[in-house]
Amino acid sequence: MTIDENWYSEAARGFGMSLEISEKLHEEQSPYQKIEIYQTKTFGRLMTLDGLTMVTDRDNFVYHEMMSHPVLFNHPNPKDVAIVGGGDCGTLREVLKHGSVKSAIQIELDECVTRVAEEFFPELCESNSDPRATLLFEDAIAWMQNAKPKSLDIIILDTTDPVGQAKRLFSEAFYTDCLNALREGGMVVAQSESPMFDKELISDIHSELNKAGFAEIQTIHFPQITYPSGWWSATMARRDQKFGDFREQSVIRKPFATKYYNADIHRACSALPQFLLDALDAN
Amino acid sequence: MTIDENWYSEAARGFGMSLEISEKLHEEQSPYQKIEIYQTKTFGRLMTLDGLTMVTDRDNFVYHEMMSHPVLFNHPNPKDVAIVGGGDCGTLREVLKHGSVKSAIQIELDECVTRVAEEFFPELCESNSDPRATLLFEDAIAWMQNAKPKSLDIIILDTTDPVGQAKRLFSEAFYTDCLNALREGGMVVAQSESPMFDKELISDIHSELNKAGFAEIQTIHFPQITYPSGWWSATMARRDQKFGDFREQSVIRKPFATKYYNADIHRACSALPQFLLDALDAN
Repeated sequence: MTIDENWYSEAARGFGMSLEISEKLHEEQSPYQKIEIYQTKTFGRLMTLDGLTMVTDRDNFVYHEMMSHPVLFNHPNPKDVAIVGGGDCGTLREVLKHGSVKSAIQIELDECVTRVAEEFFPELCESNSDPRATLLFEDAIAWMQNAKPKSLDIIILDTTDPVGQAKRLFSEAFYTDCLNALREGGMVVAQSESPMFDKELISDIHSELNKAGFAEIQTIHFPQITYPSGWWSATMARRDQKFGDFREQSVIRKPFATKYYNADIHRACSALPQFLLDALDAN
Repeated sequence: MTIDENWYSEAARGFGMSLEISEKLHEEQSPYQKIEIYQTKTFGRLMTLDGLTMVTDRDNFVYHEMMSHPVLFNHPNPKDVAIVGGGDCGTLREVLKHGSVKSAIQIELDECVTRVAEEFFPELCESNSDPRATLLFEDAIAWMQNAKPKSLDIIILDTTDPVGQAKRLFSEAFYTDCLNALREGGMVVAQSESPMFDKELISDIHSELNKAGFAEIQTIHFPQITYPSGWWSATMARRDQKFGDFREQSVIRKPFATKYYNADIHRACSALPQFLLDALDAN
């Protein structure tokens, strides 16, 4: 097969990922970015923002499960959750599978992303009308600055890449606002890009979280086929204590199915490759 | 960036991976396949066989380490090792880092692959002249049929995809010959393709190993950026007993450096995604 105009391609840093397309289903320019939806041949539907892959039907489960269940099953009793970004609503759906959660607030800048997701990825949005869910469309930086102190148990930073305005979401100042909004024992988790391509960024995130005063910081990693390098990470930090044991029995007995996450994966996902440990140690 | 004629692309099953190329360094048709070497922009050198990615400078360390160290550090005292395939010699190099290894025999069908590797990937071939190494260029099926019973501790199946002739390397008959060639406590490990794209194949490998009479079978997984889906697996099987504990202290004190593998990764790499567990259970 040849990569031609029948493929969607994302290429940067000398590496390209392509998905074969059967048709383009939608295109719009929101106030913030160009949103496109394609029907792929083997990955279901694909959403891109400014030409970068955000979500496909086939592989989004890994990312959404790994952005939510490791922190939620680590916390002893997560009640109040905030999701920054997350416009496709897949993370919100995973969060609301936890019976302990009383409130999940999603703060996404671009309402168009969520409206397009509701139309083209209805299964990711199936919990949007859950009475525990609140969907806000505004600047998360300002929202976090004004958040009530010690009002949240978990903050999930389901953001785009640290480019342009989104850079501020990877800074000590923003992490300090997150820390102040967390209750004792609270945790933040940030998507932290590719271990292969972005180890310096992952190091920087550790530094910024450390400067913000988090007590323990831990990167986890997982395959993510359609993101650059096919390998992705998230970095978790806990406000004022070590992560300690996770709720293993709750994972084993969880009343919902997962496709990637399970108790063994929970234990395994924080085992870091030697080159990444070396990069973090050198920082 | 656009994927054009300045990129090498591999595309199948609706998914493509591309590497930006600065020049083609070599091309030859061996008796078995077309061997090409490219200089890439960001992945160092690239070797392809019949248009399929075999090895790049940048990411081969993950594959070669994970095909060798998990089995070798699981075995209490690996002395005699056979590598089937492995023509780029990167696995052989990792195996010979183990001081316990007295003999490592590589049985590669296509001598041209190794000669090209020696020229273009000299660092992968740096142990080819180790007095413990024997490089054979012949059919591994026949070699294994004729192998002395109970003469090997570890067999590494560093093969191409199960297509054409190579299919026989994924069969009960071949696995039975491997089992007979292994000493008590001996282990085989086979590269077993992508967890995302090939879960049926991984299931089949478990079945064939089971039919051949192996006592315990375990799949491990790891990122492999330039292989289809960017995510790869290997399946290990032990002749007549459970894997048991690995030599953790030997890993911690190993006298050589690794870039991916370490003791935490050893424990973690066998934690399987739920969808793969479900597929194996259903088999």
